[in-house]
Amino acid sequence: MLVVQKYGGTSVANLERIKNVASRIAEYWERGDQVVVVVSAMSGVTDSLIKMAHGLLPSPNRREMDVLLATGEQTTIALTAIALHALGIPATSMTGAQAGITTDGAHTRAKIRNVSPVRIRQCLNAGHVVIVAGFQGQTDDDDITTLGRGGSDLTAIALAAALKADLCQIYTDVEGVYTADPRIVPNAQKLDEISYDEMLELASLGAKVMQSRSVEFAKKFEVIFEVRSSMNKKPGTIVKEETKSMEDVIIRGISMDKNQAKVTLAQVPDRPGSAARVFGALGDANLSVDMIIQNGSPKTAEPCTDISFTIEKPFLKRATDLLLGIKNDLGFNGLAHDDQIAKISIVGVGMKSHSGVAAQMFRALAEAGINIQMISTSEIKVSIIVDIENADTALKVLHAAFFPEAAKADKIATAKN
Amino acid sequence: MLVVQKYGGTSVANLERIKNVASRIAEYWERGDQVVVVVSAMSGVTDSLIKMAHGLLPSPNRREMDVLLATGEQTTIALTAIALHALGIPATSMTGAQAGITTDGAHTRAKIRNVSPVRIRQCLNAGHVVIVAGFQGQTDDDDITTLGRGGSDLTAIALAAALKADLCQIYTDVEGVYTADPRIVPNAQKLDEISYDEMLELASLGAKVMQSRSVEFAKKFEVIFEVRSSMNKKPGTIVKEETKSMEDVIIRGISMDKNQAKVTLAQVPDRPGSAARVFGALGDANLSVDMIIQNGSPKTAEPCTDISFTIEKPFLKRATDLLLGIKNDLGFNGLAHDDQIAKISIVGVGMKSHSGVAAQMFRALAEAGINIQMISTSEIKVSIIVDIENADTALKVLHAAFFPEAAKADKIATAKN
Repeated sequence: MLVVQKYGGTSVANLERIKNVASRIAEYWERGDQVVVVVSAMSGVTDSLIKMAHGLLPSPNRREMDVLLATGEQTTIALTAIALHALGIPATSMTGAQAGITTDGAHTRAKIRNVSPVRIRQCLNAGHVVIVAGFQGQTDDDDITTLGRGGSDLTAIALAAALKADLCQIYTDVEGVYTADPRIVPNAQKLDEISYDEMLELASLGAKVMQSRSVEFAKKFEVIFEVRSSMNKKPGTIVKEETKSMEDVIIRGISMDKNQAKVTLAQVPDRPGSAARVFGALGDANLSVDMIIQNGSPKTAEPCTDISFTIEKPFLKRATDLLLGIKNDLGFNGLAHDDQIAKISIVGVGMKSHSGVAAQMFRALAEAGINIQMISTSEIKVSIIVDIENADTALKVLHAAFFPEAAKADKIATAKN
Repeated sequence: MLVVQKYGGTSVANLERIKNVASRIAEYWERGDQVVVVVSAMSGVTDSLIKMAHGLLPSPNRREMDVLLATGEQTTIALTAIALHALGIPATSMTGAQAGITTDGAHTRAKIRNVSPVRIRQCLNAGHVVIVAGFQGQTDDDDITTLGRGGSDLTAIALAAALKADLCQIYTDVEGVYTADPRIVPNAQKLDEISYDEMLELASLGAKVMQSRSVEFAKKFEVIFEVRSSMNKKPGTIVKEETKSMEDVIIRGISMDKNQAKVTLAQVPDRPGSAARVFGALGDANLSVDMIIQNGSPKTAEPCTDISFTIEKPFLKRATDLLLGIKNDLGFNGLAHDDQIAKISIVGVGMKSHSGVAAQMFRALAEAGINIQMISTSEIKVSIIVDIENADTALKVLHAAFFPEAAKADKIATAKN
């Protein structure tokens, strides 16, 4: 069996953990599997490199940042290979370039163009474990590139696709994908499986497990992968194309994102192109907005409308400065913003064939006396904005409403203790 | 003018020093020079990487050590390029591979096979400063290699040769090559120039300025280079092919090496092949000896001889263990060793055409009451072994004998103060 495993920064944070990773790889190798391992930089390394560069220049050149940051993963591949040698296992490290990962030239956020794992196959055939530097590749001009956030996951999934791996395991510091964040909802349950689309919605909605782009890549190339913990041996969550049986489960999970802020433009002239101008200006400034809601405004005689949207908190000031700067051009009357909000989303492919999910959601919140500020829906999710003070309660209430068995199981477990 | 500059680990030890290096590069670039800069790893980095590897395995795989260690220089090239950008100077970093440095596959001590600086030329022609990672190259199979100790000097000299540079500057933490170690001989004088051969003898005799292999490479490809300090703007020492005028100076410098130990094998059978067996066995064990002296031994009736040699202190125990292990095979009678010795050498191409230099050396030491334990000569040097207690005095006595002007100048300077 050909297995691709990916270990993140916390899993290789120090020599002890690297030894631990090596033992885990050894189990697979010793049972006769071919193993390709993708590793990230030891946690903290990338940040300290960025800090050094910023000590020289606030916005360092992206090509040079890639040269700098790529050293982080290169250090880990060598150490991981040496840790395997210490167990008597043949292992060869490869940089992104050596592993055959070619990208475009968009430094610090390059896109993989091609994976040509010729050397990996040679090494695997020679009985070696192959350790590949995640997060990095090389352009056709031999320039070092990095893939941006979540890049090591992407490397693993791209290699699994190119090698037609039998198994792709993403080892991380959580045990899998949960029905909700277990730090807030103690009776949240680990999912055995989840569809790409559900995982994508959860990723884009604030669940920290994986970046959307890696899931999109996996979906496109039909790579089934497992998210699991490097700290124990429990099975994790399998992410794959949705199956018929998945649709019997209406809600797969509930995500929460407290990193959002809300902006409302009051009395925008209700003319064709108004919204385009607002979001065009934000887009040109690389400010990406999430939920957008437009209502007719009854306050004036002239036809006009209120437009609200959410944006990540760190970008709130830039967005409001930008919009106020072109207020006359856009013609709106007032701008309000609020960063004391949270977005909560219920996600599930089963929604497509079940009606009344949104209504059930709203009813549960109403019964708990929680006010909903904004609503946005897609085929497989419903997102709402609530006051940040109510966020944790709202998450718990919704989890109890949609996963009543989990709440019961939890009560039984508590009673037993 | 095309200038190649090399900055060692202490010159780029932290962000402040990297900024300082950038300003120095800027001076050359701003006056219109094309500048290629070779940098080492920030001091301490290589050692800490080695320590990590040894934390996993006492003798880590050499290929993986190269992958690991090459990250040190790669970090420095990116930071140096960014420091130049901060000064508004266009700069591009290159790994050894990107700079076109191809080596053999002898990991951790690779030999440069070819330098093809196509990319460097393109960047220079585009007006960029090019920052090259020293100490590293790439095999024909795209494996990362390192060149071993002194490897960054070698990179600089190899690039200067390939680019036919007008100037090659080796920046270090000393101001140049001195007539003797100025920490021991305060009136030692900085040399304006020195021949490759003299520099080679000094290097191999313990002067810490540069490794022999870089000087040999420079001599082979006729690269004239300057050793100078990165901490001030004083001119350093030019190293070049000897000229007629150089021969007027009989002694160029005096070196001292306290890292030697002496081994004497007593009563080795005086037969053909005795010495070959002794030094063959040491050579097979990768133990390299320096001075070798063989005397007839008068103590026995059978024809036999005493053989003495020096070896670096850290290898003394391995050498004596090895020889005692094959004592019967070699047939010697006793083994004595002494690590409380020092080697002092006088070096100068002028010796070739001047007689009596050795005699003058021995006379100066005799007058100071210093006993000589071993003597070894070559065309341009005389080396002696003395007791380590007498070493500093011997160095001062010899410096006063061969550089009387320096002593006088020093006395005048002292009188003036």
